[in-house]
Amino acid sequence: MTEIMTSPGVQGYDPRTAAPAGEPVPLTSSAEIEATVARAATAFPAWGDWPARHRAEALERIAAAVENAADDLVTLADLETALGAARLHGELARTTGQLRLFAEVLRDGNYVDAVITTAEASLGRPDMRRMLRPVGPCAVFSASNFPFAFSVLGGDTASALAAGCPVVVKAHEAHPRTSVRTYSIARAALEDAGAPDGVLGIVFGVEAGRRLVTHPVIKAVGFTGSQHGGRALFDLAAARPDPIPFYGEFGSVNPVFVLPHAAQSRAAEIAAGYAGSLTLGGGQFCTNPGLLFVPANSGLIPAITDAAAARPPSPMLSRSIHEAYVRGTGALGQIDGVRLLARGTADRDGGWWAVPQVHVTDLDTFAQHGDGLAQECFGPSGLVVTYHDGDALLRVAESLDGNLTASVHADAGDMELAARLEAPLRQRAGRLIFNGWPTGVAVAWATHHGGPWPSTSAAGYTSVGATAIARWLVPVAYQNWPDELLPEALRDANPLGLARRVDATFPG
Amino acid sequence: MTEIMTSPGVQGYDPRTAAPAGEPVPLTSSAEIEATVARAATAFPAWGDWPARHRAEALERIAAAVENAADDLVTLADLETALGAARLHGELARTTGQLRLFAEVLRDGNYVDAVITTAEASLGRPDMRRMLRPVGPCAVFSASNFPFAFSVLGGDTASALAAGCPVVVKAHEAHPRTSVRTYSIARAALEDAGAPDGVLGIVFGVEAGRRLVTHPVIKAVGFTGSQHGGRALFDLAAARPDPIPFYGEFGSVNPVFVLPHAAQSRAAEIAAGYAGSLTLGGGQFCTNPGLLFVPANSGLIPAITDAAAARPPSPMLSRSIHEAYVRGTGALGQIDGVRLLARGTADRDGGWWAVPQVHVTDLDTFAQHGDGLAQECFGPSGLVVTYHDGDALLRVAESLDGNLTASVHADAGDMELAARLEAPLRQRAGRLIFNGWPTGVAVAWATHHGGPWPSTSAAGYTSVGATAIARWLVPVAYQNWPDELLPEALRDANPLGLARRVDATFPG
Repeated sequence: MTEIMTSPGVQGYDPRTAAPAGEPVPLTSSAEIEATVARAATAFPAWGDWPARHRAEALERIAAAVENAADDLVTLADLETALGAARLHGELARTTGQLRLFAEVLRDGNYVDAVITTAEASLGRPDMRRMLRPVGPCAVFSASNFPFAFSVLGGDTASALAAGCPVVVKAHEAHPRTSVRTYSIARAALEDAGAPDGVLGIVFGVEAGRRLVTHPVIKAVGFTGSQHGGRALFDLAAARPDPIPFYGEFGSVNPVFVLPHAAQSRAAEIAAGYAGSLTLGGGQFCTNPGLLFVPANSGLIPAITDAAAARPPSPMLSRSIHEAYVRGTGALGQIDGVRLLARGTADRDGGWWAVPQVHVTDLDTFAQHGDGLAQECFGPSGLVVTYHDGDALLRVAESLDGNLTASVHADAGDMELAARLEAPLRQRAGRLIFNGWPTGVAVAWATHHGGPWPSTSAAGYTSVGATAIARWLVPVAYQNWPDELLPEALRDANPLGLARRVDATFPG
Repeated sequence: MTEIMTSPGVQGYDPRTAAPAGEPVPLTSSAEIEATVARAATAFPAWGDWPARHRAEALERIAAAVENAADDLVTLADLETALGAARLHGELARTTGQLRLFAEVLRDGNYVDAVITTAEASLGRPDMRRMLRPVGPCAVFSASNFPFAFSVLGGDTASALAAGCPVVVKAHEAHPRTSVRTYSIARAALEDAGAPDGVLGIVFGVEAGRRLVTHPVIKAVGFTGSQHGGRALFDLAAARPDPIPFYGEFGSVNPVFVLPHAAQSRAAEIAAGYAGSLTLGGGQFCTNPGLLFVPANSGLIPAITDAAAARPPSPMLSRSIHEAYVRGTGALGQIDGVRLLARGTADRDGGWWAVPQVHVTDLDTFAQHGDGLAQECFGPSGLVVTYHDGDALLRVAESLDGNLTASVHADAGDMELAARLEAPLRQRAGRLIFNGWPTGVAVAWATHHGGPWPSTSAAGYTSVGATAIARWLVPVAYQNWPDELLPEALRDANPLGLARRVDATFPG
């Protein structure tokens, strides 16, 4: 608390040099937090009742405004994150794509999941009509590793605004000025769209974030970040007098299984793909392939050694991430039965640079440590685990904890083993990938970016893709309600043209 | 703890006399709990992977077996609950109806919410296919007030089994022998259906229930009961190393708003409907209309007085419910500005009989007490609140806490006020009823039986109706997964004939 009270504000840094980047952004005062949340509460009835097509237009306006400011935003974000202009331009395009996907979801309209049960006097059954409605003002916690796509205007904010919920964003400490700039662009676009004041708010500081989670007005929380920080906020949400859902996405080790025939026939290709996925964005993805299972004595080990040793260091997003990486990789190397397989090209001084590191162990050592070796070490750190036969591989798959993804590399001769792996993996991961790498999450209608604890705090939900909107909705049913007082989605005439289930009949 | 350790078991009672009903059922030992949960874990892969149509057949077999034993079950349940044979036969029909509704949901198959995003090489977009799968073994807590429909084979169990999740039921203390009998019928039917051993289990005792909520194998909990008991279990679920969803349904005061023209034109009909709904099943419904708003000086007050005074006492389900009722109604009568409006016919001795009581107050007194007067007093207790004008009624509607239902009685002249009430009410209640009473929940595709805290612990879900299955499902997405290794629901040929969204195109 003392640290917070005496802090001049949230100071951004250039990870390449560890030097301060621009002026700090002031911490949000208690009074400002209250005012921001109160504005969100006031905005809710109007925003929630806006026709979906108007909310769609507002999201598209925001997307256009972000595009207009793309060069500025990328320059700012690159200074604060060192992720590089190419990656950041790509991420910005993903961010505007998300906003537009939710505009499409709104125009489609079926996200309200309208269901009608007709009256049946002989059964004493009333007319019943169910749909989803916005839950209320929400809080969104920005992530360090996506200054655009999981931050002020990221998927959480886009989906909550689409649902009809005002959003108060808790900005991430790693990119304060990018957050301020993004917020002011969004605010102006929302004002142009005629949206109610207070639909989007922002706060800075750890204590401000905690206050959001406990504030009576806030009805749900979206979070992307570490399990440690997320668990603390989850506990706050659950301990409220009125507990609220906490949709936390914490990242995972994302196991990859290279099956024997694939390892045999495509060693160089797989090694190159692995090294690329492991070090992409400095390895700072929640879908980073931290755990790779490969056949013992295959050509993969030397191929991986070569590929990983050629990867350069990259700056980490923050001092604390850099320190945790150095600590985590150091600890891994100290474990009996684990040895360093490859180290990237030489370290760099003067900033938060991390050298890629790949360690190797065998299945017995891995199994001895329980979950101990299956812990995420955020950054370009990988653990390769060698196995001798498919049965042992199945047993280890059945022992794994919850993950966002699990990947299988298989050739024609591996299909039987791949089929057996599918059942344990689908119980333990939200996305199963065939002959591919987990980094790079497509933003689409069918996307699921989630998984069992500890990869998320709510395995039933996704933070990416069209169904991410479900986190901000709750059902309401109308019984014998007069048609003229019903929401459009439920009226007899079906003015929105929705694909509604009527009794047991579903369109299609 | 001492009480539990020395208890001879779970003793049922006849609420009409307070005498023990049959022998006690032994508390489940720790070893038996572990064995039951272990069997559920073993059963999960097979049950979850059974084709949905086979699970549908198993549910129908259970329904038929329950019907065959209807007379026995009703006799047992009437002894333990005193709810009466007519009501219990009705509840049994509802219970088998629920099992058959979920069989219909399984045959329909669209509950898996299959969505396909096709590959698009130019966008670098992979093929992605998402569906819902069973979450794992679940725990279900039986309710006191529905010995069939919210108990061993109630909607929670039916929906979880339908989803593919084994269920361990924690039986309710108020009807142990009914629970044992229901369970043995279900076990035999499941065995006949060829279901894996362990798909359904049962435990007895408060400590056994707590152990289920904290057991690593259990992945979700369904609960119907008091807010006090439910909150304690919710806290256990949230405090686990791996928190799990706790779907608690706690009941509510279910406000009813009688608008001026309706009060004027239909006083006798509304008063009779109110008294009937308030005292149905001894007032022991979570949808009991505990709070009635009526125009001051209307003919409704004398009509309600007459209707309520004619209602007989009824036996309450348990000693503790009876004691809480006597305490709660007594406390209500002590509050300044609240007076007893009507008392049912004379009390009865020798059991847990409760006399219906209706108190009355005005809107100012109600508002002064904040939520104090809007607390559920389980049983046939009602509070009538008089109001003078529509604006004041709107303000009080906006001040109410979460409820399962809210009802409006309106004539043609009331429609403007009814329209204004709809917005605050849909934020505060899961089901809005027009010219009807909240008791009697239709079990159908469009049913929503849920609501914001404190009426439930998970406002996004229902415990009644087809969508209750969603509580036991989590998504999984397959990326570039070979067609022959995909679940049937996602294969190109669509062998289950599902109404799948493909990219932006949705059937209908």
